Amino acid sequence: MTIVITAFERSPDGGRGLARDTRVRWALEEVGQPYEVRGVQFAALKEPAHLALNPFGSIPTFEEDGLALFESGSIVLHIAQRHPGLLPDDPHARARAITWMFAALNTVEPPILERANARLLEGDKPWSHDRIPIVEDRVRDQLRKLSARLGETDWLDGAFSAGDLMMVSVLLRIKTSGLLEAFPNLAAYVARGEARPAYQRAFADQLAFNTRP
Amino acid sequence: MTIVITAFERSPDGGRGLARDTRVRWALEEVGQPYEVRGVQFAALKEPAHLALNPFGSIPTFEEDGLALFESGSIVLHIAQRHPGLLPDDPHARARAITWMFAALNTVEPPILERANARLLEGDKPWSHDRIPIVEDRVRDQLRKLSARLGETDWLDGAFSAGDLMMVSVLLRIKTSGLLEAFPNLAAYVARGEARPAYQRAFADQLAFNTRP
Repeated sequence: MTIVITAFERSPDGGRGLARDTRVRWALEEVGQPYEVRGVQFAALKEPAHLALNPFGSIPTFEEDGLALFESGSIVLHIAQRHPGLLPDDPHARARAITWMFAALNTVEPPILERANARLLEGDKPWSHDRIPIVEDRVRDQLRKLSARLGETDWLDGAFSAGDLMMVSVLLRIKTSGLLEAFPNLAAYVARGEARPAYQRAFADQLAFNTRP
Repeated sequence: MTIVITAFERSPDGGRGLARDTRVRWALEEVGQPYEVRGVQFAALKEPAHLALNPFGSIPTFEEDGLALFESGSIVLHIAQRHPGLLPDDPHARARAITWMFAALNTVEPPILERANARLLEGDKPWSHDRIPIVEDRVRDQLRKLSARLGETDWLDGAFSAGDLMMVSVLLRIKTSGLLEAFPNLAAYVARGEARPAYQRAFADQLAFNTRP
């Protein structure tokens, strides 16, 4: 059965790889599973056909053999649990790797999302100038704790895992913010993720998709 | 092996059940696993002993048989995968239930967290009055979509699952906000979750813990 994922017909980031289909593409490349991509126009995100796949009207979705999933975290976990390459075999190490997925999505990403909202949705508000530094302090606070835990290791807990895939993906959202530079080990960690051949293929494919004629 | 979780020595909510140990207590009650609770003083959250368990310095953590986990989402998933009662047996239904856990934590909870930050951390800022309605619109937007998907069903996808446990837990954070009232099916959904005997036991236990002499 062919795996089919959805992506924006044209990502608002123009192919910088920040739309969440990149996380799923990366996971599929790590485990060597081929897939097809169906582009969804913005207007179609709110139509019944897409809402049946994702009730929140966003991308990505994942379809295979009668199963339909949404939420990039859930999709990456599903891929990681079904194919070798993204989770350790040892049950304890496996549970810890999954913990890092949740830490990426529920502890590190929320202040990063808040910063994105402050800039994109409230950038024209009178409080924007005074408030963005406050929000960035919240991001920095999590980066500081993550940096302390990572230390001088390559990945968060032993070999590269779905936890690292998700954490690097979340940190890529602030790659150009200047916030990572204060934590050289985190900047190097993100660069290490980006250097993986599977990420390179995923990035190239989403760029080609978003810049196709 | 005894399961040990951590909770705030005294939760800042005074026992309203909003600290995240309640989610884990609820899951353990649903699957009938006994556990012990270790209270952590606020000052101790930043000490090496606790940071070794949770590098972000928060609660809950989970320890059993040499395994240490953090992130309530990861802990609830771990419990649900190891004990019957919180995930369906059918692999597709199981993957969909896990998708709802991620939807609760990464799609519905972020604007709810943003609202909490706006009130608790920025309530004294000059922009607070004008900004809170904007943030509440973000919450409402997700509630509207969730309400549309839930419709008149009892739970999000068939029988009660870890996905519902997590979604109800997230929605409980806005129980007294007035935001749920516009969506009677969501208010009823939350009440249905709260009425479960396992939730009742978890709530009573955290209340007793937080109000002990």
